[in-house]
Amino acid sequence: MKDTTLGTGAYKGVRDFYPKDMYVERYMFDTMSRAAESFGYSEYGASVLEPVELYKSKSSEEIVSEQTYTFTDRGGREVTLRPEMTPTVARMVAARERELTFPLRWYTIANMFRYERPQRGRMREHWQLNADIFGVPDIEAEVEIIALSSSIMKAFGAHESDFEIRVSDRSILFSLFDELALSQETQKQLLLLLDKKDRAPHSDIELEKLLGDKTSAFREKIKRASSSTELELLIKRLKGVGVTNAIVDTSIVRAFNYYTGIVFEVFDTSGENKRSLFGGGRYDNLLELFGKKKIPAVGFGMGDITLRDFLETHELLPEYVPRTDLYLCTLSEKARGYAQALAQELRAQDINVEVSLSVKRVGDQVAVASAKSIPFVICIGEDEMKSKEFTIKELKGGKEKVLLKETIADYIFSHI
Amino acid sequence: MKDTTLGTGAYKGVRDFYPKDMYVERYMFDTMSRAAESFGYSEYGASVLEPVELYKSKSSEEIVSEQTYTFTDRGGREVTLRPEMTPTVARMVAARERELTFPLRWYTIANMFRYERPQRGRMREHWQLNADIFGVPDIEAEVEIIALSSSIMKAFGAHESDFEIRVSDRSILFSLFDELALSQETQKQLLLLLDKKDRAPHSDIELEKLLGDKTSAFREKIKRASSSTELELLIKRLKGVGVTNAIVDTSIVRAFNYYTGIVFEVFDTSGENKRSLFGGGRYDNLLELFGKKKIPAVGFGMGDITLRDFLETHELLPEYVPRTDLYLCTLSEKARGYAQALAQELRAQDINVEVSLSVKRVGDQVAVASAKSIPFVICIGEDEMKSKEFTIKELKGGKEKVLLKETIADYIFSHI
Repeated sequence: MKDTTLGTGAYKGVRDFYPKDMYVERYMFDTMSRAAESFGYSEYGASVLEPVELYKSKSSEEIVSEQTYTFTDRGGREVTLRPEMTPTVARMVAARERELTFPLRWYTIANMFRYERPQRGRMREHWQLNADIFGVPDIEAEVEIIALSSSIMKAFGAHESDFEIRVSDRSILFSLFDELALSQETQKQLLLLLDKKDRAPHSDIELEKLLGDKTSAFREKIKRASSSTELELLIKRLKGVGVTNAIVDTSIVRAFNYYTGIVFEVFDTSGENKRSLFGGGRYDNLLELFGKKKIPAVGFGMGDITLRDFLETHELLPEYVPRTDLYLCTLSEKARGYAQALAQELRAQDINVEVSLSVKRVGDQVAVASAKSIPFVICIGEDEMKSKEFTIKELKGGKEKVLLKETIADYIFSHI
Repeated sequence: MKDTTLGTGAYKGVRDFYPKDMYVERYMFDTMSRAAESFGYSEYGASVLEPVELYKSKSSEEIVSEQTYTFTDRGGREVTLRPEMTPTVARMVAARERELTFPLRWYTIANMFRYERPQRGRMREHWQLNADIFGVPDIEAEVEIIALSSSIMKAFGAHESDFEIRVSDRSILFSLFDELALSQETQKQLLLLLDKKDRAPHSDIELEKLLGDKTSAFREKIKRASSSTELELLIKRLKGVGVTNAIVDTSIVRAFNYYTGIVFEVFDTSGENKRSLFGGGRYDNLLELFGKKKIPAVGFGMGDITLRDFLETHELLPEYVPRTDLYLCTLSEKARGYAQALAQELRAQDINVEVSLSVKRVGDQVAVASAKSIPFVICIGEDEMKSKEFTIKELKGGKEKVLLKETIADYIFSHI
C-alpha cells in the first residue's frame, strides 16, 4: 500500500498558490495591470514554450547554457520554457512589424523558468510584469518607462524614500571596451561578472583572470567614469514627472547582452533586500536578429517574488479579504433548494453568495462562514421561507437586522 | 547573413496573443472569474510543471502514455507539463487537508499542454477554468457545479436554447461492467472508446475487438439503460435553480478514469461545434491516492478554445475597445514634458492616458490615436501651456470642447 502512495509536494523550486497566496498574487498583478494601462499599455500574451533558437543568440550566455529548461519534444523539436520575456516580445513585434501602429506600448504578466538552486528571492519559476515601448529612439521612452516603474511602486503604497532608481548608460562601458580593445567574448564575460557583483561579492581574482594585464587600467577608468549628459538629462526629466528618487550609478550593467544604452535597476533602501528588485533598459538592435529593420525599444521586467519580499518588508501587503459577501445557512433539504434559488437572485445583483450544502447544526454552519472570514450570514428555515423575512448577521460584531428579500443586496453594499 | 536570421513563428501548436486576441482572453477569463466568485469560489494557482508520478495512476491511460509533455530535468527528475488540472488540485487539497475548511470551493484559470496534432478546437496548449467543490457527498454539489457552468454561459450572453447540458451517471455503466464481468483493463479501454465517439465516429470493429462475444450483450444493455432516480432528481433540482436545458444522456462517459458518479457535458445546439464544449463530474476517490481519507469532489473544466469558437458562432464576442481613454498630442519638446506631467495628474484620477513622444506633425500623431481606436485626443502646444485651456476632441464624430485641466477627467467619464 505504502509504495503506491503519491506525494503531495509540488515540483522542486515552484510554488503552489493556496487561496491566501493567490490573493496576494492577484493583488500584485491587478495593481501592475492597472498602472500599465493607465500609461496606455495594451496586454499581450504568449506561450511559455518557445523554440530553443530564440535564446541561442543575444541572451546572456550563462542563461542559455546552464539555466534554461530545454528539451526535445516527441516530434524531435528542441523547445525551451522561456527564461525571460524580451526575446518573445521581440519575436512577436518582428512577425507583425508592418501591421502594427508604432510607438507600440505593450505589457504582459507571465511566468518564466530558470533551472537554478532555489533560494531567497529566486525560485525556478516566477511571474513577471514586462512592459515595453517600441519605436521611440530618444530619451522620452526611458522617461516614460522609468516613470511607469515608479508609478507601480507608488500604487503599492511605497514612498520614494522606500526605493531608489539607479540609472546607468552602457555606452560608457562600451567606449571603455573600445579603449581597452577587449574582444567580443571578453566583453560578454565582463558584463556577466559585473552584473553578478550584487549577488556574489565581486571577485578580484575572476576579474584578473578575465582581463589579465588590462585589469588595473579597467579598474582605474571605471572608477573615473562619470555620468553622461544624457543621464543628467534623464534625471532632470524624471523630476519633471514627479520621480525624484533616481540617481546615476555607473556600476549598474544588467546581465543581458542585448541592452544598448541606458539601463536601470530599482533597489530597496531598507537594507532588507540587497539585490535589485527589478530593472530594465534600452535594446535597439534586437529586432535585427529576425531580419527586420532596427526598432528602438525600452522595457523592464518586475518579478513577483522580489516584489512580494519588498511589500512584506515595508508592510504594504493587503490583509486577506474573501471575495464572498454572504453565507446562506440552511436548516433543511427544502431550505437548501430555496437558498440556492435565492442565491441566484442575489448573484444577479452582484452579491457573491456561498450556500451551505450541509445538513449539520446551524452553529457548525456559521462556524464554516466564520473560518472563511465571510462577513455576512443569513439562516434559512421554514420560518424564513414562509415570512419572506430574513435576519442578516454581520459576523464581526454580531449586529443583526431583519430584511425583506429585495433589500438584502442594498444592505450588504452599504455595510461593506 | 540569411542563415543566422531567426524565425518569428511561435512553437508549433501554441498561440501568440496579440492585444486584440488577449482582449478576448481577458474578457473570457474575467467573466469566468466573476461567475465563480459569485458562487463563493476562491482562486488558487499552481505551476504548470508537476512531478510525472502525478499522472501515472488514475488519469486516462492514453493521455499519460502518448499525449503528455514529459522530460527529465538537469537534476534527473522526471517532470510533466500538466495536461489537466484535477490531479494538481487533488494534490494541493491532500497536502493541507487538515487545515482547510470544508466544503472547499476553489477555482483557477490555468494553461495545460497536450502533445497532439493541432486541429480546430484542439491545440497543444490551452487555458482552462477549473472549478471544484470538495466535501459534499450528495447531489447538492452536482446541482451547484452545473448551475455555475450554466451561469457562466449566461454571463457570456448565451440563452438556454444555445446550449444543452447532458448528464449521465457512471454507476449505470459500472453496474453493466459488473454484469458482463469485464476486466479492469477492458473497462478502461471501453471508457476511452465510448468517450471518443464524438470525436471519431464510434467504430464497431474496435468495440468488437475489445468485447469479443460480449459485444452484442453490451450493445443491447446500453441501449436499454435508462435514467436513474438520482439523475431525475438532478434534472428536477436544476429546474429549481433556473437551469432548464439539462437532459439525461447515458452515452456521456468522459475520458478520465477518476470519475465515480454523475458526469456531464455541455454541447452547442447550433450544430457548428459538434464536440462537447466542456464538462465535468464527480470524483470521490482521487484523494485516496495520496494516502488520505476519501473526500467527495465534483468539478468541471472549461477551455478557452472551444469557448471562443462557441462565442464566435453565436456572435457573443465583444467588440475590441482599447483601455486607453485619452491620447495627448505634443507640438514641441517642451510640450512633451508638460504632457507627461499632465498625464500623471489625469492617471491619478483613473484616466488611462497615452502621451505622444513623437516629433511628427499633429495630423500624423492624431492618425496614431485613430489607428489605436483611442476615443479622445488633446493637442498640447505653447498656447495650451499658457492659457491652461485644452480642446478635447472625440475622434468618433469629431465633437470638440474646450476644458480647464480640472474638468478633463469628469468630461471623459461622462462621455464614455
